[in-house]
Amino acid sequence: MDPASLVKLFAQVKAGKLSADEAVARLRHLPFEDLGFAKVDHHRVLRQGMPEVIFSQGKSPKQVAGIFARLAEHEGNVLATRATEDQYRAVSALVPKSEYRPLARAIVLKRDRRRYGKGMVAVVSAGTSDIPVAEEAVVTAELMGNSVQHIYDVGVAGIHRLLAHRGTLVKARVIIVCAGMEGALPSVVGGLVGVPVIAVPTSVGYGAAFEGLAALLGMLNSCASNVSVVNIDNGFGAAYVASLINRR
Amino acid sequence: MDPASLVKLFAQVKAGKLSADEAVARLRHLPFEDLGFAKVDHHRVLRQGMPEVIFSQGKSPKQVAGIFARLAEHEGNVLATRATEDQYRAVSALVPKSEYRPLARAIVLKRDRRRYGKGMVAVVSAGTSDIPVAEEAVVTAELMGNSVQHIYDVGVAGIHRLLAHRGTLVKARVIIVCAGMEGALPSVVGGLVGVPVIAVPTSVGYGAAFEGLAALLGMLNSCASNVSVVNIDNGFGAAYVASLINRR
Amino acid sequence: MDPASLVKLFAQVKAGKLSADEAVARLRHLPFEDLGFAKVDHHRVLRQGMPEVIFSQGKSPKQVAGIFARLAEHEGNVLATRATEDQYRAVSALVPKSEYRPLARAIVLKRDRRRYGKGMVAVVSAGTSDIPVAEEAVVTAELMGNSVQHIYDVGVAGIHRLLAHRGTLVKARVIIVCAGMEGALPSVVGGLVGVPVIAVPTSVGYGAAFEGLAALLGMLNSCASNVSVVNIDNGFGAAYVASLINRR
Amino acid sequence: MDPASLVKLFAQVKAGKLSADEAVARLRHLPFEDLGFAKVDHHRVLRQGMPEVIFSQGKSPKQVAGIFARLAEHEGNVLATRATEDQYRAVSALVPKSEYRPLARAIVLKRDRRRYGKGMVAVVSAGTSDIPVAEEAVVTAELMGNSVQHIYDVGVAGIHRLLAHRGTLVKARVIIVCAGMEGALPSVVGGLVGVPVIAVPTSVGYGAAFEGLAALLGMLNSCASNVSVVNIDNGFGAAYVASLINRR
Amino acid sequence: MDPASLVKLFAQVKAGKLSADEAVARLRHLPFEDLGFAKVDHHRVLRQGMPEVIFSQGKSPKQVAGIFARLAEHEGNVLATRATEDQYRAVSALVPKSEYRPLARAIVLKRDRRRYGKGMVAVVSAGTSDIPVAEEAVVTAELMGNSVQHIYDVGVAGIHRLLAHRGTLVKARVIIVCAGMEGALPSVVGGLVGVPVIAVPTSVGYGAAFEGLAALLGMLNSCASNVSVVNIDNGFGAAYVASLINRR
Amino acid sequence: MDPASLVKLFAQVKAGKLSADEAVARLRHLPFEDLGFAKVDHHRVLRQGMPEVIFSQGKSPKQVAGIFARLAEHEGNVLATRATEDQYRAVSALVPKSEYRPLARAIVLKRDRRRYGKGMVAVVSAGTSDIPVAEEAVVTAELMGNSVQHIYDVGVAGIHRLLAHRGTLVKARVIIVCAGMEGALPSVVGGLVGVPVIAVPTSVGYGAAFEGLAALLGMLNSCASNVSVVNIDNGFGAAYVASLINRR
Amino acid sequence: MDPASLVKLFAQVKAGKLSADEAVARLRHLPFEDLGFAKVDHHRVLRQGMPEVIFSQGKSPKQVAGIFARLAEHEGNVLATRATEDQYRAVSALVPKSEYRPLARAIVLKRDRRRYGKGMVAVVSAGTSDIPVAEEAVVTAELMGNSVQHIYDVGVAGIHRLLAHRGTLVKARVIIVCAGMEGALPSVVGGLVGVPVIAVPTSVGYGAAFEGLAALLGMLNSCASNVSVVNIDNGFGAAYVASLINRR
Amino acid sequence: MDPASLVKLFAQVKAGKLSADEAVARLRHLPFEDLGFAKVDHHRVLRQGMPEVIFSQGKSPKQVAGIFARLAEHEGNVLATRATEDQYRAVSALVPKSEYRPLARAIVLKRDRRRYGKGMVAVVSAGTSDIPVAEEAVVTAELMGNSVQHIYDVGVAGIHRLLAHRGTLVKARVIIVCAGMEGALPSVVGGLVGVPVIAVPTSVGYGAAFEGLAALLGMLNSCASNVSVVNIDNGFGAAYVASLINRR
Repeated sequence: MDPASLVKLFAQVKAGKLSADEAVARLRHLPFEDLGFAKVDHHRVLRQGMPEVIFSQGKSPKQVAGIFARLAEHEGNVLATRATEDQYRAVSALVPKSEYRPLARAIVLKRDRRRYGKGMVAVVSAGTSDIPVAEEAVVTAELMGNSVQHIYDVGVAGIHRLLAHRGTLVKARVIIVCAGMEGALPSVVGGLVGVPVIAVPTSVGYGAAFEGLAALLGMLNSCASNVSVVNIDNGFGAAYVASLINRR
Repeated sequence: MDPASLVKLFAQVKAGKLSADEAVARLRHLPFEDLGFAKVDHHRVLRQGMPEVIFSQGKSPKQVAGIFARLAEHEGNVLATRATEDQYRAVSALVPKSEYRPLARAIVLKRDRRRYGKGMVAVVSAGTSDIPVAEEAVVTAELMGNSVQHIYDVGVAGIHRLLAHRGTLVKARVIIVCAGMEGALPSVVGGLVGVPVIAVPTSVGYGAAFEGLAALLGMLNSCASNVSVVNIDNGFGAAYVASLINRR
Repeated sequence: MDPASLVKLFAQVKAGKLSADEAVARLRHLPFEDLGFAKVDHHRVLRQGMPEVIFSQGKSPKQVAGIFARLAEHEGNVLATRATEDQYRAVSALVPKSEYRPLARAIVLKRDRRRYGKGMVAVVSAGTSDIPVAEEAVVTAELMGNSVQHIYDVGVAGIHRLLAHRGTLVKARVIIVCAGMEGALPSVVGGLVGVPVIAVPTSVGYGAAFEGLAALLGMLNSCASNVSVVNIDNGFGAAYVASLINRR
Repeated sequence: MDPASLVKLFAQVKAGKLSADEAVARLRHLPFEDLGFAKVDHHRVLRQGMPEVIFSQGKSPKQVAGIFARLAEHEGNVLATRATEDQYRAVSALVPKSEYRPLARAIVLKRDRRRYGKGMVAVVSAGTSDIPVAEEAVVTAELMGNSVQHIYDVGVAGIHRLLAHRGTLVKARVIIVCAGMEGALPSVVGGLVGVPVIAVPTSVGYGAAFEGLAALLGMLNSCASNVSVVNIDNGFGAAYVASLINRR
Repeated sequence: MDPASLVKLFAQVKAGKLSADEAVARLRHLPFEDLGFAKVDHHRVLRQGMPEVIFSQGKSPKQVAGIFARLAEHEGNVLATRATEDQYRAVSALVPKSEYRPLARAIVLKRDRRRYGKGMVAVVSAGTSDIPVAEEAVVTAELMGNSVQHIYDVGVAGIHRLLAHRGTLVKARVIIVCAGMEGALPSVVGGLVGVPVIAVPTSVGYGAAFEGLAALLGMLNSCASNVSVVNIDNGFGAAYVASLINRR
Repeated sequence: MDPASLVKLFAQVKAGKLSADEAVARLRHLPFEDLGFAKVDHHRVLRQGMPEVIFSQGKSPKQVAGIFARLAEHEGNVLATRATEDQYRAVSALVPKSEYRPLARAIVLKRDRRRYGKGMVAVVSAGTSDIPVAEEAVVTAELMGNSVQHIYDVGVAGIHRLLAHRGTLVKARVIIVCAGMEGALPSVVGGLVGVPVIAVPTSVGYGAAFEGLAALLGMLNSCASNVSVVNIDNGFGAAYVASLINRR
Repeated sequence: MDPASLVKLFAQVKAGKLSADEAVARLRHLPFEDLGFAKVDHHRVLRQGMPEVIFSQGKSPKQVAGIFARLAEHEGNVLATRATEDQYRAVSALVPKSEYRPLARAIVLKRDRRRYGKGMVAVVSAGTSDIPVAEEAVVTAELMGNSVQHIYDVGVAGIHRLLAHRGTLVKARVIIVCAGMEGALPSVVGGLVGVPVIAVPTSVGYGAAFEGLAALLGMLNSCASNVSVVNIDNGFGAAYVASLINRR
Repeated sequence: MDPASLVKLFAQVKAGKLSADEAVARLRHLPFEDLGFAKVDHHRVLRQGMPEVIFSQGKSPKQVAGIFARLAEHEGNVLATRATEDQYRAVSALVPKSEYRPLARAIVLKRDRRRYGKGMVAVVSAGTSDIPVAEEAVVTAELMGNSVQHIYDVGVAGIHRLLAHRGTLVKARVIIVCAGMEGALPSVVGGLVGVPVIAVPTSVGYGAAFEGLAALLGMLNSCASNVSVVNIDNGFGAAYVASLINRR
């Protein structure tokens, strides 16, 4: 699919080193392997410049460990999100250098310590209960080579707390804001800065919070124009987008 | 139903002025009249200390005028909300002293100009498009004998605009906050003051605002504890509750 | 942010006691401390006249105890809502004078026993299963210095039960009504009295009750104008609003 | 399908008057005719003891008139619900004895004036705006041979209005209750009587009424056990069910 | 509230046996007792001709037993729905004659064995998984003095199964139809008979059944006019309504 | 993308008729043209064996006509669905042989009259108001070369009407069933036959039909296993799928 | 119900071998038996050409085993879906030849190994977590006599993975596509082939996936016209429909 | 609020040029003006580096023109979105140099023609009907100083159309993807590139598209990690975020 290799392929055909049929077959040969239950795509690293990530929820410890170990054979960092301690035990048996971050519920194998991001990514969260989601964002952003600063417990009902952190906010190149309940924090943060804000609704709250729906709708309707939104509790996704922006 | 009258009724029975059957019949005689299509309840004034109000939407101009005129025969103020100019024309033919407030879409007959509220009611709104709802609240609160101040166009994405009005906010005894889109303003206002905040979600916004649902859910999930909520676009209801609080 | 201190600050600058930079820094110095996982805001007491409250759900016993103990170092009452017995055990180890109210699922430290509310707050609930929410409201309102009376098990399908309590209802300055299922009780209560009614939908019911959604919608659409609504099961919020109103 | 005719059919076969094939064909011959766009089923009268009814909404005046005229060729009453004046003009050209009831939006051809219902059907409605739905129920119930009494404008926020009609309510054999907004009226009525209550949610209300959804959910969750529910605005259906009950 | 007693009360006043104040107080004295956590209303029996019923879900075994025993002190049948075996054990310790019906999850005390219903109530259910709801309806209807017949496992995808039971269906005076999934069975049954059909959506199904919502909406939109609907899984409510109809 | 052409392409490279770069460029050359506002893909005919179809809703008459005319330059049939008479006038000016089918709201250009389907496609609809959707299915299926039979007005509340058409149903190779309201018809039809049933929910109904949502959920939860579902009112899609099945 | 038997029946009547009444009775005798809790319909095999299937979820092991054993007395294959290992143990005690397929959560008794399907059914799934649903489809399709090929882990965010399997896709006669999250895979697959695609939304995903609702809506709105949809997680239903199509 | 000015302010106080009270007052003086109905905030330009934008929907032509003219007095570009031709006429009377872009429904005043973005922004849309939203994004992005390329009509059901544009896609620094119906396009685009993708759900589609909800949910659940989402039809918001990213 990449022009250079194609030109090379055609050159080999012209030079008689490959028959037409062999060339077609080779075109078909795409770079992924079959583990039986999941096709691991190492080329995604090339395509997107980011490590493969395992979404562990709903997978058995053995499945998580199997995929993790396979990915660890290649270079680069490996991350398993939504991982339990049980899943970590299975992973660590196969990949002893992996670490578990309980707050973020993440298994991490960090080998590439280069700084890819040009500036700082701020991760802001509204309440104590939003911390797991915010930590998932922090761990992910760090693993993807960003300088990260956290600002925790700065809900909109105590606006002076947030204003006290204005200095940090204006220094960030991208800001991730995690909030449950009414999901108002991204709007306020968005109004204070001139950089992209990635909003993460969290499933924190009760009653009419409807597992994050209220926060999600709030963020989608933000009156601040620099806000875009990812899925409920998706700290990983927010950090992934923020990392891409920070590399621009 | 009121003990004093009951005691008097029993006294009449005892005195032989009323037979038992007549007394039972009288107990049944409740104070409302039959207009054919709507029973107007003048005692509500006594019961709740507020004028009768007509919700005009979905009623014909003739129906609105009929009810309005009937209510105008008694003392006190009369208010018709969600009224069109057509409905006003029908009302004004019967009740020439009535006035139309186009921004608030209200027909008003103001005769009782006493100040019932002990302090000031602030009405805050987020955007230009929330004004009709906010104005309905303003007109209602004024008609119910309150001193009212409006603070308009102070959305959360420009938090300094709101902070500039902090002086007015802290002087209010009750605050009504009207906001559409993400509905975050009541939380921020609620965090700045120590008085009850009545939140009114408006149907302003588009897409995932879902006709006010996003704002409604946001307000119900407010992280500020001094916030309670009324129905979408219900400026009247918010002012009614605020008036009762302001009379405490 | 408070004018008096600002004037004093400028005076110090003028007097040469503070450099301009020091003054700016001091302006930035806002009154909250960092516990690592949650910024406790003692000034909220000043700002709103109410104690800090901990929402315990989803926090570890250790986290609840940590915040509770810190807040207990200052004066005033402390309240932890949605608390389990496990969380209470952790709190009581650090704050032996704290008490657990199982029906209300609340941990309470009551030191300020002044009566702040001017009148009585009535708490009305529809069914046996609404009691936990109603009790949360009762405990909260008492802790905030109100005289409280409960009226339990007075659903709308037996309207005479409610009418029998009319005497208590008309004596209240504010009324909290907790109801699940169709959520009709606030409308009926609202029609009987001339004071603000705070409606609390509860998640009681089954099938199309949809975890309190039916009651919530019912209350938002109340045909009684003196009703405003808080989140599903939010007995605390209702009592907080009621307390503010009762202090007017 | 009816045993008697089947026995007769077999007897004819046995007697040699019908061949087996003819008998099968006759079994297949079901009693409805083909109008091209709608199969009119006259046997429904026999099966359910009620006239055929035309739901006019979304049909052209010509279509309504065509079906109406066809039905009018047979005996019995004919009813077209949700009919516009345009549709009525088309019907009345073909069936001059038909009448239009504007409040109920119904076209009526009344020829069978017998009283089928054993007792009285009460139709109760909460507000002026619920009248069209209530009137549809009234017209339908009358056409189906019931004695009907209406009690209008008796919302739950003025409970004494409803209690004043208790005499009528306890005389009814079935009660239809139409209400929008919070839909609480059926619960209160249901608690006052010992007869079946058919609840009709109406699409009256605004904001979080969500076109009748709030009322519908409220009624389905009624805490009164004698309440069952029909579709939003379905006055016809309620009267149909009530008529069947009243014939028991 | 009942005219006869009122007349008697007034007579006593007239005769000087009661002072006016005592009479007022007595009017206030309504016939329910206070158990501490639930007001049991014995008069409901008089008012509606049906025994008191306990909804056991969410109540402790002790609470269920307490209410059950109290109700058992009076005459008539007692029913606890949604009861667990644990709750039954607590009840049976206090009321040894009570029985547990596991399929229906009901505790029953049957003392009044009179036949109140004039005809037969048919209970139809679509699938094996609808049986608990259908059995709740059966037990309730029997306890309320009806002759009951069940027709189980007759879903619409095998329409001949249902048609085979047509004989029983046409003999019923009222029919209860329980169905999950698409909830189509009441429409088909409704089309076959000329009696009221009470539809009970069940939470059976998966995926887009959304816990009974699909069935509920299906039934509310039934194209058969003799169908009314109760809450999801509310077998009790259906039987209650059916019993009232069967007594007409 | 098709192996044969690829082999040929490589052969040309080998033979020196094409340079490697030219070959790469040719691989890139995909068979669609640019109309400015819509890329018309003629190869879709080859890929799927069906004509291109224009969804006219929301397009201007000029846009519809432009695309239609372009498609008409090639062979095969052309179909514009959801077309207004205005759109047809614009099309017919450019393509005089096109025809308008008002019931189905379709513009048709039929040139290929071959019979591609192996058997008959039955289109069943429940009520008069479902006809536009059913007709869209009929027109589409005919245009795609199928023999089609319609069975109209056979709702589940009159099950004998449907049973009378059993002969036609069992002869069909695929059945399309259009139904609004409770959407039960596909389940009943599905139970009578052993062929695939394509269910089309229609937006017919009112109140809790929620614009076809009730029917959609009903069909997705069908207890008949041979039913699959397309979007609300999507008669075209159903006919498209049915045509593919009928060609198998 | 089948003409031949009817003709025979009439012939017997004519020949005097059966009385008319006996014939009617025989007509009534439909071919299912009563197990007490579920009517097993062996004729469904004849009617639809497929074995009876047990939906095990929510049934006790004993119930599943009872139905399974009964069905196993007749010829043909038997399938129990959504079965737990506990349920299998109960089944295998009665039917030792039954097998458990843990990935598909299915109990299988395969005796008829004929190939009924004319071509190959491809089962495509997007992610590792969709495998249980896809396997249910695979097991079902195999049991119904189809040749089946699986293509796993080919989500739309790595479109080249899917394209690599194009060869298999174009060989299939029907394609089942299982996908959670955004449910986009059926659209992409549908665009690549000219055969019917049966889309199965899975409940995989989190947050705004809302238990499969996002995928379901995505698939219903597919821009590929050859897609129809079954219920969330309904791998069985998809395979059933695919089998019918593959037999055409 | 900006440290430099604060330091300067304190310096003036120190120098005796300002009293403490004057300094406090000046701190309060925030930079916005009062137009009566909307506070225009010129400083937002400084704060976020972008021009003020008017959301015209629901505003009168006079209101739009008033705000537009006021903003035009200052330097920089002005943009009014969701503008009608009527609104444009009012604006152009006051600001003759403004232009109307009908496809994008935008009024534009372009004076600053500098290129602020570092690279190219690609705007991709799925269908003809998504063009208005896509054009709003294009106009906005151009006005904010970006090089923009559009790729239109590349839906996922014809994946080769999209692949043909891969060259453009990989050259973009940010990509905006507008799609209605199933909203799958951002996932596919996201998988092809390594840059941030801003997804805009459009309200295009019918039936179960539910005014853009299906697309919105699809995009939030994207299996491509580089996707974040803005509100339904919010082309402006997407371009705003993209512009900020492109300036990094």
